[in-house]
Parts: sequence; C-alpha cells; structure tokens
Amino acid sequence: MTKGAIVSRDADFPRWYQEVVAGAEMADNGPVRGTMVIRPWGYGIWELLQAELDRRIKEAGAENAYFPLLIPESFLSLEAEHVEGFSPELAVVTHGGGKKLEEPLVVRPTSETVINSLFAKWIQSYRDLPLLINQWANVVRWELRPRLLLRSREFLWQEGHTAHASEAEARAYALQILRDVYHSTMVEAASLPVLTGHKTARERFAGATRTWTCEGMMGDGKALQMGTSHELGQNFAKAFGITYSNAEGTAEHVWQTSWGVSTRLIGAVVMGHGDDYGLRLPPALAPAEVVVLMIKEDEGVRTAAEALVADLGSQGHRVRLDDRVETSFGRRSVAWELKGVPVRVEIGPRDLAEGHVTVVTRHLREKRTVVLSAVGHEVTAILERVGPELYAEAEAMREGRTADVGTLEEAIEAANSGFARIPMRALGAEGEDRLATQALSIRCLQRPDGSLAEPEDAEADLTAVVGRSY
Amino acid sequence: MTKGAIVSRDADFPRWYQEVVAGAEMADNGPVRGTMVIRPWGYGIWELLQAELDRRIKEAGAENAYFPLLIPESFLSLEAEHVEGFSPELAVVTHGGGKKLEEPLVVRPTSETVINSLFAKWIQSYRDLPLLINQWANVVRWELRPRLLLRSREFLWQEGHTAHASEAEARAYALQILRDVYHSTMVEAASLPVLTGHKTARERFAGATRTWTCEGMMGDGKALQMGTSHELGQNFAKAFGITYSNAEGTAEHVWQTSWGVSTRLIGAVVMGHGDDYGLRLPPALAPAEVVVLMIKEDEGVRTAAEALVADLGSQGHRVRLDDRVETSFGRRSVAWELKGVPVRVEIGPRDLAEGHVTVVTRHLREKRTVVLSAVGHEVTAILERVGPELYAEAEAMREGRTADVGTLEEAIEAANSGFARIPMRALGAEGEDRLATQALSIRCLQRPDGSLAEPEDAEADLTAVVGRSY
Repeated sequence: MTKGAIVSRDADFPRWYQEVVAGAEMADNGPVRGTMVIRPWGYGIWELLQAELDRRIKEAGAENAYFPLLIPESFLSLEAEHVEGFSPELAVVTHGGGKKLEEPLVVRPTSETVINSLFAKWIQSYRDLPLLINQWANVVRWELRPRLLLRSREFLWQEGHTAHASEAEARAYALQILRDVYHSTMVEAASLPVLTGHKTARERFAGATRTWTCEGMMGDGKALQMGTSHELGQNFAKAFGITYSNAEGTAEHVWQTSWGVSTRLIGAVVMGHGDDYGLRLPPALAPAEVVVLMIKEDEGVRTAAEALVADLGSQGHRVRLDDRVETSFGRRSVAWELKGVPVRVEIGPRDLAEGHVTVVTRHLREKRTVVLSAVGHEVTAILERVGPELYAEAEAMREGRTADVGTLEEAIEAANSGFARIPMRALGAEGEDRLATQALSIRCLQRPDGSLAEPEDAEADLTAVVGRSY
Repeated sequence: MTKGAIVSRDADFPRWYQEVVAGAEMADNGPVRGTMVIRPWGYGIWELLQAELDRRIKEAGAENAYFPLLIPESFLSLEAEHVEGFSPELAVVTHGGGKKLEEPLVVRPTSETVINSLFAKWIQSYRDLPLLINQWANVVRWELRPRLLLRSREFLWQEGHTAHASEAEARAYALQILRDVYHSTMVEAASLPVLTGHKTARERFAGATRTWTCEGMMGDGKALQMGTSHELGQNFAKAFGITYSNAEGTAEHVWQTSWGVSTRLIGAVVMGHGDDYGLRLPPALAPAEVVVLMIKEDEGVRTAAEALVADLGSQGHRVRLDDRVETSFGRRSVAWELKGVPVRVEIGPRDLAEGHVTVVTRHLREKRTVVLSAVGHEVTAILERVGPELYAEAEAMREGRTADVGTLEEAIEAANSGFARIPMRALGAEGEDRLATQALSIRCLQRPDGSLAEPEDAEADLTAVVGRSY
C-alpha cells in the first residue's frame, strides 16, 4: 500500500500524516509527552507564514508587544466562562528559585487575563483608543490526545488583543482581522480555500460573545479550525476594570476583541495539499521553491548547477543546491519530493552534454526535458501556476465532498465523509446536541449564500456547516 | 536635578534608567514579580535587532527551529556543572491538566539539555555534521534582583546550538558567531563599542569549556555582558550520548557550541546611548527614524506633513506622522525626544508660510530651520551621521574611563568608575577572589593588544579587563 517512502492517504490518513511530518523532517516529539519540536523544514514554513501574517497585522494597525508567560492563578478566575473553559488544560508552576511560591502561577494557555490587567493600567482616555496589540508567543494547554502540529501541549501562535470605544468598532475590527489577515493569508499564501462564518454558543471561545472562524477541509474530508477572531464584548473589561473617560468625561468600559492563528496552520498545509508522495508546498510557503540537484559529481555539472542556482536566486526565488552526491540521486530526489519543494531541476552529465536538464513539477509529478538556457523562464512559469492550481484542486475536493441536506440524518451521513450544509431551522439546538453524540459539530454558521451573518440575522435563518473536526 | 521629564543621569543613574524605560513606553512590570512586559516601542527595537541578528545567523549557516519550553527535571542533572549553575534559578511545573505530574518539569532556563537529547537522535554519521541550529524563544530564570530588560524572570533571546566533528571546527564556529553575528550587530546596528575576549573559569557558562563574550561599558561606567558564545567541548555530547560514525565507521562524540543574546540588548542601547533627555536611538534600531509633527491643525500644515511623510517613506526611511494636535505640541515633542527618535520635523503654519520647517537632530539636540524642498536631503544626511557619532561618543567615553594599571589596588580603584586593564600575571586567581569581595569581576581576558587569545596563550600572559557589572 505504500508508494515511495510512505503509506498512501487512502489506506491510513492519520499514519500518512505522521509519516509525512516525520519523513519531511518537519516536526518531532519532545521528551515530555505531547510536546513538539519544530524542525528547520517545518519552522521554515512557519517563518514564511509569520511574515505573511505579520505584514497584514501591521497593515491592520496593530503593534507587536510581549507579555509574561506566567500568570497568577487567581487572574484566570476573574472571567467566569474563561476559567471554566481553560482550567482543565492548565500547567501550573508551584516552585520558583528553590522555594514553594505563595501563589501558584499558570503557564499561559492564552493571554486575555494578563494583557487585560495591563490594558486597565494603560487605558485612561478615549485618546488611548483603539489600542491594537499583537504578540507572537508560545502557549501551553494540557491536551489529552496530542498530535504533532495540530494539537500539542505547547504551540506557537500570534494572539491579538484590542480595545475599542464601541461595540460596532470592535466587531468591525474582529471581522477586518478575519478577512484581511487570516482569510487573505490562508488563500493567497497557503493556497487553502477556507469557509468563514461564526460559531454557535456551544463552540465559542470561553469568554467571547461571538467567535468568527476560518474552517478548512483536509484531505480526508475532516474539518480543521484554522483561525478564530473573537468579539469579547465587555466581559474582560468588566472583569479587569478597563474603563476610559469619553469626550464628555464619563467613565465607560471598553469593547474588546482577541484573535489567533497557530503552528496548526503548518499541519493544515500538510493535510490540505499533501499527496501519496508527501507534502506539496505552495511556493509562498516553501523554504526552498526550487532545488537544483547534481545527479553526480562532475565539473561541468557543478558549474552548470551553481550558475543555475545563482541565476534563479537573482530572479528572487528561494533556491538550494543539492550537491550531496555521496547519497544516491534517487534517495535525494524522493526526499525533496516528500518535503514538497515545488520545482526540482536535475542535472546530469549525459543530458548536459546535449544542453538539457530535467525539470520536475512537484504538484503534478511531471518531468520535462528543458534546454539549459530556458530553465529560468520555465521555472518561473511553473512557480506562478502552483499556488492557483493547488487552490483549485483543494476547492474542487471540498465542493465534491459538501452536500446540501435538509434533515439531521442526512447531515450525519454527509458529514461522515465531508461537510453537510443544513438550515439551522431544520437542526436547532437539539440537533446540535445529537451531532455531538456522533462526534460531529457545527463548524460555522453562514447566511445561505455563504456570506457572514449580520447582527440582525436570526440564527434560525442561517445555514450550518456540519463536519467532523480535528 | 531633572531636565525635562526625567532625573539626570549623574544624579541617579538607576532611577534615570527606570524613568527612561517607563517614560519611553519601552517596558513595564508584569503582575508576577520580576516578570516584564515589552511594550510596542521596546518591542519595535527588538524586532529590528532580531532582523539584524537573524540575517547574520543565517549567513553563518544556522537554521531556525523550535524546541519545547518544558524539560524533564532529570535532564538538567545529566551535566554536572550545568545543573549546579542553573538549579537555584529554576521555575518548576508540578501539575498539568488538573493532576500532579509523575516527574516535575522545568521551565527552560536555557535549552542545552532538551536540544541535545534530540541531537542524539538526529546525528548518526559524519554526513549529518556540522548541525547548526538556532531558536528564538523565551526562557525563565528565577532572578532575585530583577530589573526591567536587564535581568528579568522571563526574557526573550536567541540560543544557537551546534555539533561538529572536531574541536577546532567547534572553536572556529563559536568565534565566527562572536565576531560576524554578535560583534557585528552590536557595532553596526546598535552603534555600541564592545570588547571581546573570553571568561575566566569563575565566570564561565555552566557546562562550557570556554566562554567568549562581548562586554560593553554603560553610561555609568559599569560593564554589561551583552552576548556570549560558548565552546562546550564534549561535555553535553557525553552526557546525552551524541555520537557520529566517522568516515572510517568509528563512533566518536561530537564537539559542540552554544551562544545567545537577549532582550538585554535593548537595555544596553538605553544605558549605552541615553542622555538626560531620554533615549537616543541609532537609526538602524529606531522603530521610527523620523517623526513629522504637526504643531497645530491647519490645512496647509497637514498637506505639507503628509507629503513629507510620503516622500521620506518612499526614500526607505521609517517615518511616522504625529497629528495628535489635541495634545500640546511641547508635550509631544518631549515624548518623542524621550523615545529617542533620531530626527524630528516640526511643521507649523507660521514657518510654513515662509516655506520653512524645523528639523531637530535628537542626539545633538540641535534645531535647524530648513527650506521645505531640502528636508528630504537634510534628513537623509542626518540619519547617516547618527550611528557613527553615537558610536564615537560611546567609545570615547569608554576610553576615557579605562585605566591601564599594574596592581590589584589600582585595579579596584579604577574599576569603581570604569574599566581597569591589568596583566593576569599581576592579578592571579587570588586577585580574582579579592575583586569579588568588592563586587568587581574580570569581564574578559584578552591579549595585551586587545585581540582574542589563541589556544597556545598562557593565561598569565593575558590582560584582564576588570569592572563592576550589571
């Protein structure tokens, strides 16, 4: 059942995922169960994702800052739903500097509490609003069923926290982040189609009044929550006493948002685009967009390979030279395929004597013989195609596995292999409970045309997207 | 004794430091004693430092990765000196997911142990060497006398960890990092002169065979250790069983290095360049190199200010517009001075009517009236001067406060207000003990001409730089 080095996706998707993550040297298990090491290939993808997200976050006006990892345990209890949601997952520091601490400290599972304790200090007047802050950080959640890159006991993410003078402004900002930062990065950089909508009360972030989400469909038809943006109302503002004096000098509580995406996105790229030969990376997220492989050591081959690397690099592509000729060509070729490098250029003495090289397009597994002088042009043309073609393929897959249904039973059946779209009127709160008994859930609510709900929409008039989630 | 908003450096340097860090909105205290919040102005400096360091680290061939925060307590004990050095400073997680853990977990104070446990798995053959890894991360050390940005219970840093086939190669790499990454960033980006040398056995990193260091002199004459690069010999390789088979197939232990710089560098910039009016930033580390201030709201002023911001931005400068005219001009001007923005351009209706604006050079506190059409050229010219002039000033200060001495007594006297340089032959191990009773220490050892020691140098032939350190 294996093609090349790994099991096929159809035979065993979870094992396929593990084998790709391990084989492509993306991540490894840490010594503490459930913790994760992100290896250079995985981290290189994360760095490119970070740059894409960070640029858009700054364009949305937020500034980066950094807040402490350790939070007094008592802070968590200040917002009732928040503590209920997070307390089963906490890691707790009880000793510091060889002594038992007076108050235990929680390792942040998310930073609403600590950040808002500072917002209360920094925000005085309407002139201090909006306050738009983002941080890049690690967080710890004691997950029971850890899985590399998808659900680990520690992960990396960005978390945005903002304070506004009105509910409407907070809502508009939460949606701006969802659209202009998250959806845009997922579609344009990761070439992953995602549905946007909001969560039901059951699936909402602990402490939020509304959670907006980006939901992707993975290669096995299951749903992955890829990023969320929350309206927090005045819940934390009241818990932490965050008030500002308005233009008339009256004290008012701020309205807030928080939003985050994590290293889980790396897992989404694996499961959203991978095939039976491994990872397939969109060029925007490929630590190497092109690898030039020397088939064997040879003076002419080395000269041509180095010239090509320099030429492609000067055109702005991320290129690597693979001159590890002590390892067999076949083995190296399979390894780069597994790592998902979009284009491989293979140079051997025989082809070179005829002025040719072989260019391999990873996502199509298509080999072509190309005249040496045309390689730069050919590679650029391929790289322009990869992202849109991966996107189209993933979108067609999702559309093919999404069914519009009218009853709970039909929804359950359809959601076993993909998404079911069902009017909330036909589902109701009871239907949501029954989905849960099948390990299914409402991934998001949308208007029937797929657009986001507006404040005036009744939930009964919305459509639920039902799926089995990671 | 205060000029503007803050106390003068001469009156009370520690208070001056606190007031600059708070007043420039660089950092704040976290709710847990000794923890720190890095605010956007401080974090903006850190982002620029990170970019400078990261580019050089990658040029040195290291790749970024990420390793777990939580380390089994037993790992720390595997290297004897390492555990002795770090155990008084550890924060310990004893509970996770609501249960007491079977083995307590240490929050990483540094990552030699966890990273080397993975190196042991990844390294098999000489083909896997050198392995050059860097991570950007937070670490926790339970400091007893915390101080914002200089010594906090959590800080951000990068830590590099490498494995090599020979001692000579490891040594060369540790020195390459010291010179091409650390010294280069400190001099070229931070405009801070630093001495390089190695530590005595007493001051060495716990577990290292040799620690190389960059030492700066702060505005009060005290020394700040700004970055270290360690040769680890085979200490961790033996503790964690990191072996490779050489070309003949024989198993050998690897030779290793580790190296780090932290957010302490932000504190170094404050104390190395600040004056009685606040921070003075070298342009390479200024989140805003230029701020254009509208003195008051006025159509012509706004048009001119916005055009100037666009023009300076298109020349590649980081520029901000300050149009917060509801706040008095004087107050805003003092605030930007405190934040250390290298150039301020002040635009008011009266000057503008004559086609003029005021350009203020922060590090010299020099105001000049400039014709509007010449502002772009003038600002560029000033920005080119700032870095070299700050460097020259800091270097002259250090040279003026450094004395060459011949006896321990002279060294103690000189080190009370700066650095003393003394032959190790005249100091010896006993002299080093006596310095410690005065809270003084050997900051680094150098050859008498200031260059780095070579393996063949006897310690007695070297010169000790003695100072009082942060």
